[in-house]
Amino acid sequence: MTTLSQVAQHAGVTSATVSNVLRQRGKVGEETRARVLAAVEALGYRPHLTARALAEGSAPTLALMVASIANPFYPEFALAAEQAARQHGRFLIVCNTNDDPDIGRAYLDQIAGTLSDGVLVMNAKLRVDDLKMTQRRGAPVVLGMWEKPHEPPGLPCVAVDFHLAGALAARHLIALGHRKIGILFGGGASCIHSERERGFHDALAELGHSDAVVRIMHVHDSVEGGLSAGAEMLADGLVTAVFATNDLPALGMLHAAADLGIKVPQQLSVIGITDIQSARQARPALTTVALPTEQAAAMSIALLLELIANPSLGSPMRTAEAPQLVVRASTAVVPKRRLKRRSD
Amino acid sequence: MTTLSQVAQHAGVTSATVSNVLRQRGKVGEETRARVLAAVEALGYRPHLTARALAEGSAPTLALMVASIANPFYPEFALAAEQAARQHGRFLIVCNTNDDPDIGRAYLDQIAGTLSDGVLVMNAKLRVDDLKMTQRRGAPVVLGMWEKPHEPPGLPCVAVDFHLAGALAARHLIALGHRKIGILFGGGASCIHSERERGFHDALAELGHSDAVVRIMHVHDSVEGGLSAGAEMLADGLVTAVFATNDLPALGMLHAAADLGIKVPQQLSVIGITDIQSARQARPALTTVALPTEQAAAMSIALLLELIANPSLGSPMRTAEAPQLVVRASTAVVPKRRLKRRSD
Repeated sequence: MTTLSQVAQHAGVTSATVSNVLRQRGKVGEETRARVLAAVEALGYRPHLTARALAEGSAPTLALMVASIANPFYPEFALAAEQAARQHGRFLIVCNTNDDPDIGRAYLDQIAGTLSDGVLVMNAKLRVDDLKMTQRRGAPVVLGMWEKPHEPPGLPCVAVDFHLAGALAARHLIALGHRKIGILFGGGASCIHSERERGFHDALAELGHSDAVVRIMHVHDSVEGGLSAGAEMLADGLVTAVFATNDLPALGMLHAAADLGIKVPQQLSVIGITDIQSARQARPALTTVALPTEQAAAMSIALLLELIANPSLGSPMRTAEAPQLVVRASTAVVPKRRLKRRSD
Repeated sequence: MTTLSQVAQHAGVTSATVSNVLRQRGKVGEETRARVLAAVEALGYRPHLTARALAEGSAPTLALMVASIANPFYPEFALAAEQAARQHGRFLIVCNTNDDPDIGRAYLDQIAGTLSDGVLVMNAKLRVDDLKMTQRRGAPVVLGMWEKPHEPPGLPCVAVDFHLAGALAARHLIALGHRKIGILFGGGASCIHSERERGFHDALAELGHSDAVVRIMHVHDSVEGGLSAGAEMLADGLVTAVFATNDLPALGMLHAAADLGIKVPQQLSVIGITDIQSARQARPALTTVALPTEQAAAMSIALLLELIANPSLGSPMRTAEAPQLVVRASTAVVPKRRLKRRSD
């Protein structure tokens, strides 16, 4: 690999001059500068950034830990985070923990503080102890979407009001006249979606319709999860609307309805939370409560860089803008007659 | 940050002993070993992997350059590549070039050979000159899905027979009796899909049905691209089947048909290429030609590691298994009467 001194020799200048040109420091004449850059290009030289970063006590990348890169929400978040990082001259390493805390810990052990000097965590099933150990080692940690703005987690975070997201879904279905509602509760035992479900129930109670939920099913947070649970939930034709705590099972519910010949939204309303790309692309397009994904990603990167620059900031919590109801084609006024299955 | 000598002091041993324990080298008594590991844990010490990697002349990560992490194919490929890399003790940095060769070059300049000692390229719109410059700098480059097994690109690659993929789609539609076929040609001006379209046409010619293609539209390689072109293609009711060079525009075509009240597969057959997750999840589920995505990802990582270990290997081309037709619910025997639009 080409060295600095080879570039200097090729350009007929000192190594210090090459260094000055590359760092845009010191006074270097325009002609000399051009000669140095030509030598850099000719020899394919590149300053050894990692070595420099180590010498200066910082690494050029940030790490993003995600639970499952195959869940389309995470690439959307990663894209926004990566663009925000690049605007600050940083690269983003995407680490996939596969929902496994041990893999997550292995990534933290290997990467945090060495390859990356900051870690952004998106629901990666990491243990709080592991994250605090990472902080103690000198690599700031930010939780990218903390779900309870009123209960700071003791780690730096960007909060999103998931309780409100659930409440907005409830108010929409009640306003459309639905009183027989099923819930697809995604996220399994970890209860990552519990704040959303609580918001839904709390809004029903406020509106005097606590008894409107007639079915609750825990499902895997995926299209397949919504599809298999959906078939079961729709079997007796009781519910007129379904609230899924995430878009993926909501999309699965649309498929379950299609398989059973149940028309959405004429016979069944379906609403999700998040507003992933597939929600907009579905037929019928999915009504959902949009989370501020891009904003939360950009705020998380900004907070991480602040903490790297100033480790004494403590554990600040920033709050992203409120979730918003996005009405599309999958919800409508409750049908006058009860839902019936077509005989085909 | 904790240093090696602080760990040594805490454990009451020399720095050399700590180093031996962490590298599992030299003879260290069990009791001493336990004391060192306890000190490592208590102080949160972690060997400075990047520094060590630099000293040993290698970096612990591989870089994956993708055109657009928002296109769901790339996360699926990235997931498989990341798992293959992890099995070899490597981490994968995912770099998103946003279809922009200049961003791609900036990533190569910053990362290749320093943070990562190998680069896997997936259709990231990188210039061949930039990739060859990266090689000259000592970082091997592998093209993750080279589309022409019979024309090696002069760079190490894993080839996938895209020509065959197109041919399989053509044979399927002809076997079903379709003689009025439209093509949604994705990928725009870069002609990344041209091998697939050529395979389609060549197979039609072999079967004596060169005149079966009655419409060709160039579309953006996305659901939206297929949706807007699909509406136009279906307007005159001429085509009975549509071949899209990628699953995303094929899915858009399903939406366009739904919007027009055209039943798939009764009135219109649709076939794509790739077999992304959404193809399986669509309603109707999409017939497609499955590419060996996971295998190509694993082979690419293996080839990259071989090249890192042995830079004199040259530019080998490995070939992944053949694409395979996957018949689902979006294709059927051609309807007896010509396609008509419903009046609603």
